[in-house]
Amino acid sequence: MTEATAAQDDRDLSVTGPRRVDLQFEPAGTRVRVPPGVTLFDAASWHGIAIDSTCGGHGTCKKCKVQIETGTAPVTPLDARAFSPDELRDGWRLACRVVTSDDLRVTVPPLVTRPKAATVGVGRQVILRPAAQKRYLELSEPDLSDQRTDLERVLDAVDDLELRADLHALRRIGRVLREADWKVTAVIVDDVLIDVQPGDTTDRVCGIAFDLGTTTVVATLLDLTTGTPLAVASMLSKQQPHGADVITRISAVMLDPAKLGLLSGLAQQTLRELTGEVCGQAGVDPADVLEIAVAGNATMTHLALGIDPEPLGVAPFIMATRRWPEVLAADLGLAVHPRARAVMFPSLGAYVGGDITAGLLAAGMDRDRRTRLFIDIGTNCEIVLGNRDWLVGTAAPAGPAFEGAAIRCGMRASDGAIEVVTMTPDGLDLTVIGDAPPAGLCGSGLVDAVAELVRIGLLDPSGRFIAEDDAATVAPGLAGRLTTLGQERVFVLHWQGEPGDVARSVYLSQRDVRELQFAKAAIATGWAILLEEADLAPGDIQQVLLAGSFGSYLSPASAIRLGLVPRLPALRVVSAGNVAGEGAKMALLSMRERAGALALLEEVRYVELSDRADFNDRFVGQLPFPS
Amino acid sequence: MTEATAAQDDRDLSVTGPRRVDLQFEPAGTRVRVPPGVTLFDAASWHGIAIDSTCGGHGTCKKCKVQIETGTAPVTPLDARAFSPDELRDGWRLACRVVTSDDLRVTVPPLVTRPKAATVGVGRQVILRPAAQKRYLELSEPDLSDQRTDLERVLDAVDDLELRADLHALRRIGRVLREADWKVTAVIVDDVLIDVQPGDTTDRVCGIAFDLGTTTVVATLLDLTTGTPLAVASMLSKQQPHGADVITRISAVMLDPAKLGLLSGLAQQTLRELTGEVCGQAGVDPADVLEIAVAGNATMTHLALGIDPEPLGVAPFIMATRRWPEVLAADLGLAVHPRARAVMFPSLGAYVGGDITAGLLAAGMDRDRRTRLFIDIGTNCEIVLGNRDWLVGTAAPAGPAFEGAAIRCGMRASDGAIEVVTMTPDGLDLTVIGDAPPAGLCGSGLVDAVAELVRIGLLDPSGRFIAEDDAATVAPGLAGRLTTLGQERVFVLHWQGEPGDVARSVYLSQRDVRELQFAKAAIATGWAILLEEADLAPGDIQQVLLAGSFGSYLSPASAIRLGLVPRLPALRVVSAGNVAGEGAKMALLSMRERAGALALLEEVRYVELSDRADFNDRFVGQLPFPS
Repeated sequence: MTEATAAQDDRDLSVTGPRRVDLQFEPAGTRVRVPPGVTLFDAASWHGIAIDSTCGGHGTCKKCKVQIETGTAPVTPLDARAFSPDELRDGWRLACRVVTSDDLRVTVPPLVTRPKAATVGVGRQVILRPAAQKRYLELSEPDLSDQRTDLERVLDAVDDLELRADLHALRRIGRVLREADWKVTAVIVDDVLIDVQPGDTTDRVCGIAFDLGTTTVVATLLDLTTGTPLAVASMLSKQQPHGADVITRISAVMLDPAKLGLLSGLAQQTLRELTGEVCGQAGVDPADVLEIAVAGNATMTHLALGIDPEPLGVAPFIMATRRWPEVLAADLGLAVHPRARAVMFPSLGAYVGGDITAGLLAAGMDRDRRTRLFIDIGTNCEIVLGNRDWLVGTAAPAGPAFEGAAIRCGMRASDGAIEVVTMTPDGLDLTVIGDAPPAGLCGSGLVDAVAELVRIGLLDPSGRFIAEDDAATVAPGLAGRLTTLGQERVFVLHWQGEPGDVARSVYLSQRDVRELQFAKAAIATGWAILLEEADLAPGDIQQVLLAGSFGSYLSPASAIRLGLVPRLPALRVVSAGNVAGEGAKMALLSMRERAGALALLEEVRYVELSDRADFNDRFVGQLPFPS
Repeated sequence: MTEATAAQDDRDLSVTGPRRVDLQFEPAGTRVRVPPGVTLFDAASWHGIAIDSTCGGHGTCKKCKVQIETGTAPVTPLDARAFSPDELRDGWRLACRVVTSDDLRVTVPPLVTRPKAATVGVGRQVILRPAAQKRYLELSEPDLSDQRTDLERVLDAVDDLELRADLHALRRIGRVLREADWKVTAVIVDDVLIDVQPGDTTDRVCGIAFDLGTTTVVATLLDLTTGTPLAVASMLSKQQPHGADVITRISAVMLDPAKLGLLSGLAQQTLRELTGEVCGQAGVDPADVLEIAVAGNATMTHLALGIDPEPLGVAPFIMATRRWPEVLAADLGLAVHPRARAVMFPSLGAYVGGDITAGLLAAGMDRDRRTRLFIDIGTNCEIVLGNRDWLVGTAAPAGPAFEGAAIRCGMRASDGAIEVVTMTPDGLDLTVIGDAPPAGLCGSGLVDAVAELVRIGLLDPSGRFIAEDDAATVAPGLAGRLTTLGQERVFVLHWQGEPGDVARSVYLSQRDVRELQFAKAAIATGWAILLEEADLAPGDIQQVLLAGSFGSYLSPASAIRLGLVPRLPALRVVSAGNVAGEGAKMALLSMRERAGALALLEEVRYVELSDRADFNDRFVGQLPFPS
């Protein structure tokens, strides 16, 4: 840690606002700050400090014993049963019963039953506590002196959990118990017994995390007992033919209500095919998939669930709901376990959807003491600023430039797309996806091309190509590429066909540059307004996370050069990867992280840009590139 | 009330055992006793004392104000917000927050919003508080300054309830709100928003109570806002061709597991057709049926839900569960509101099923201070003894005699069945169902015939027909009817065909008498053992309730004559009617009564007869008729 960031950290600790309690966990020495009212157990869990527990903090297993060294924690009735009077006097408490209100220093004994943990998200260590679990049971047979029902017999054997059964489990329980000679596996999701299976099937507990993108859908099959990914697959959304972006798809439904069923069906078909693919790859029986998690923007989530997205598409942009009720994978048309749950990520707003909630979770935005700027770049660009004490977010209408849609030689990031462009005054160098001949320009290539042209000086700060005469002086090796196509000035990135055949070349037009300027101005206006809301300067941002399928591929240097992100040392701008998918994984691996996603709804203050009188003015001010 | 019963009542009040608190409600002067821990509000509700409330005792409406006159009730945080310090000092409290521990005398103010009540069950006054309800809402339109989601907007308008929505409601909410110009009806079952309907549909809240009998299924369509029955229909169970009784049907499934699907489908088809019939009769849209209740024995309930009943049919007689999870009417194949709930009555035991739980609820067995004996007579006979302080129950295998199955001229209680028989030494009188010529003998006719023959003296107390020579002396007008058919002695009830053609007559055979003796001995052994368990004599029973489709038609005098019920003044033996169906109605009309049915599971102590070493011995002792 540099001196500068250490000083920054100290400053963060002194931030005022809603009160926090300081918890120090020994012997690790880890110090964390949480809102009063959080239990010691949760605070430890949230910060990756492992405390023994088999009940998950529900006060039933009495394993989460800790010793309070300084500070006070009242003795609860459960403590009085778990400890001797001497132990209580020495500060021993059950961590899950300690509701923090004082600063505490706590010693955590070494683990007896070691909980497994997995690293997911942006370097997040997640203690495995999936909602889906199995228990192998060897039960006694009933007789006239023990006429407990089949369900009572099973539930009594899982007495550390307070379970209820669903009808599906009851329809199977009698036959399975008897055919399996009373040796069965209880299949549990959350507090529901969803199935009883013959024999010991505890090694087969799987889940699928879906990143339900507008363009691309990614599925990751996870072994929930170990946190290991078993298979990954992705495909273009089958909704693509009905519109490249959410607005087009919403419009389609507005014009023809019958399209709702069609689009909903296509979303579900995409999820279904991916499910088949990841299960096939890993040799996993789909019936062993007990839970899925879906991180998608509000429109995609509405459509996948068969909910009319029309109110999302027109002012005042209203969602059906922010939090989703209990949804089954079957409600999404998936043929996994018939009672598998579907965790649908909640939305912060109509344009800050479940994908962003998942991304913020994966990025640990609500846990990190550093002030960070999270930017998910796409047609709609979601921006969140803050640290563990406060978060403020907005959505900026960036338009389709990054998807390549309004760009003359634009294309999606697939084989043949130029994704990296570097220039010197004497020439240029292209990196093309798939080792194919260049066929077009994807988003990151577009950003690079414009950024390099600005850096070299062939584009002036206002975004205009300089005069051809000046170009020969500024960049002799590139000047020949600056030409015209019809009325429009263009810069040729790659010649193909006859030399001088501009029409068949891969080029960047003056209008393309304008499109990118509009996109970047919208984004920059967004984070500038958030900084202003937080009363911070750009230099106060300690890290910029570029997220999303486009953002993660973007060159930080180019992003800074264009003013897409605040002017900061390039090392502070990092790619966060597919954070939506990572968040979905975290929700499957940990009930606590899942709760964290819900908590984000309360923690992020949403700033609506579209009703700000100063938006257009500020937008125009952000159009030029930084000089 | 006679002096004897008044004394009896006083004695009951002094019964020791689990402690009770005494509550006296003024100005009505009603005195009730409840277990400590019951809230004042519930105690009042359970005993038909109306206290103002719109939230149903959840502490949100602050309407259930009462004044404590004597005894103490601590001030809760909610009381402190609902009352001034002066009022608190004067004993004002919210009845739903008063957890009783002391004896209390309480004044209940007159009602402001008069709750409606309905009389159902055995003279039970039930305050209407159905789980299914509707609320008409006129909502404000969203704008950029009020971007609450559609769901939040609806839930905020129903702020006296803490609701969650289900996916079905979310799939409709957006379109309905906008098409209905924000004037909608929220459709609620329990704490779930199951639908949003355009306009004001609050006058259409219906439910169907099903008495799911082994032989006959009865459906009652209720208006849940008024408690009024709108239509009633009944039909023979479509399972009939696969066995007249539950054991035959269980055996069918044991021999051929494919029969489970068949029988389950037939049960559901029966319910479905009845639903169509009652809705058609009343002109009610099935989609306005928001909840159904099903009271059936354990086997019928298992079968209707598609659960293998095999473990119910063989020792040690194990149910899948006693309490049912959330079941939808759709799980039973019913095309009512797609999210309508199905309240499945819980079973006390494999042979004391949901029909009995419903019956006990309707009879108020858990509320009445009198010690009563509840007997549901059928192939399997359920018997419960007790009062509001204690209940003990059992099931006795009475066999099929009452259904007419093992009786030579037996038939079901349909047109042509002899249902009443009276005799003098000079002749006999028959009442036949449907004004048809006598075709056979139904259960009540069988009981009457045997009872009358015993009374007249043509059957001796051991159950044998007396010698033909003696008959001419004992009953000169009847002696000609005592004859033989083949080897067997018979008594002809009705000649048809040629005079003297015994084979074509309607008669009662010696073997028929034996069948009835076996049935009555099983039942009498049952209640005798229960009396012994309770340390009571037959004379301590203040009322005998004859329940079930057969029991309700039985002549109390004949039942006493045969020893089917204890020897008591005939006025103490009353017909309770179709208590299972009444209980199902009560569950639909009142959430409190529904909770009462669940509480019965804890309150009734079950005595298993089949593992008692003394059963056979006592059974033999009960074979003779009382002399």
